[in-house]
Amino acid sequence: MPYPAAIERLIQELTRLPGIGRRGAERIVTHLMERPEEQSRALADAAARLKGEVGVCSTCGGWCDGDVCELCSNPTLADGPICVVEHPTDRVAFEQAGVFQGRFHILGGVLSPLRGIAPDDLNIGSLEERIRRDGIKELIIATSPTVEGDATALYLARRLAPLGVKAARIGVGLPLGANLGYADPGTLKLALEGRRVIEG
Amino acid sequence: MPYPAAIERLIQELTRLPGIGRRGAERIVTHLMERPEEQSRALADAAARLKGEVGVCSTCGGWCDGDVCELCSNPTLADGPICVVEHPTDRVAFEQAGVFQGRFHILGGVLSPLRGIAPDDLNIGSLEERIRRDGIKELIIATSPTVEGDATALYLARRLAPLGVKAARIGVGLPLGANLGYADPGTLKLALEGRRVIEG
Repeated sequence: MPYPAAIERLIQELTRLPGIGRRGAERIVTHLMERPEEQSRALADAAARLKGEVGVCSTCGGWCDGDVCELCSNPTLADGPICVVEHPTDRVAFEQAGVFQGRFHILGGVLSPLRGIAPDDLNIGSLEERIRRDGIKELIIATSPTVEGDATALYLARRLAPLGVKAARIGVGLPLGANLGYADPGTLKLALEGRRVIEG
Repeated sequence: MPYPAAIERLIQELTRLPGIGRRGAERIVTHLMERPEEQSRALADAAARLKGEVGVCSTCGGWCDGDVCELCSNPTLADGPICVVEHPTDRVAFEQAGVFQGRFHILGGVLSPLRGIAPDDLNIGSLEERIRRDGIKELIIATSPTVEGDATALYLARRLAPLGVKAARIGVGLPLGANLGYADPGTLKLALEGRRVIEG
């Protein structure tokens, strides 16, 4: 006998998520079956509301509660550099470290010919618009220090140079091949201080 | 800025599940935010229906679609031994390996003084009832080969001996300290063949 249909269905949905395999999904379902129904309902409710309640900032592409995030609607930040990151979680990592008081731009990933991710798949057009509209002078490109992250940084620096913007790559301090989301506040601070201009 | 409320809420629910930490939960939420809303809705729907749609067999304690599972309601199996396991997933592991054609009894865990799990917390009373009612002659105790699993097997053998039932411990083949759910079909088969009577 295989699992009851409702068990198998939840296992299937869980294994579509990153980091959860078949066996991990079975453990999770076993856990939920042993707990009061409120726990699976709370999980269901949180998942159901996710996409409806979380907005994507029309300016920077970050997660927010409304249409424009609080950083993008803060006039006192309008003059400084923009920190360009891959994912919304990377922005939160910077904010929680408290080492950058400025605005962000979320690319939504990095260029990857192997995975078929081209410039048009990233939020680069909206970054150009911001630079033109707000007269941005400096970008800090904080993509992950991987081959793809470096290539994306170089691509951005070259593409945006004609707009008169200076693009700097996040600097020394981040160990090569690391995932930006795991970095500690001190490492993030060093990396910001050690940024250097890309010779496009 | 912390995460939007709906993001933080789903992260909290995910980290309550086994095998998912804070960072893993953030990866999952990032993934869901980048996918169409249908995916998070499908996950939500599967989680919401879980406890309502999956029944627990009133005889063996296993998961089923109705009140009594198909094995317990199959009269041709009424005479053979009963295989006693910890969790519903362990039963499925045996069934998928195809090495045991008989009925099961799911304890719901193992005795564990450290975690406060006493005999009354497991489905042992219902096992005694089955033995008395159906005249069961043989039990195969397939709890995990750990200290707690072994202690539970010995406890069951001693407690159930007065009912005239022969209790055998699942045998050689399972590596010590292993988790039963990870065992391959061949190992499960050897373990069944190598079972031996417990001298209570």
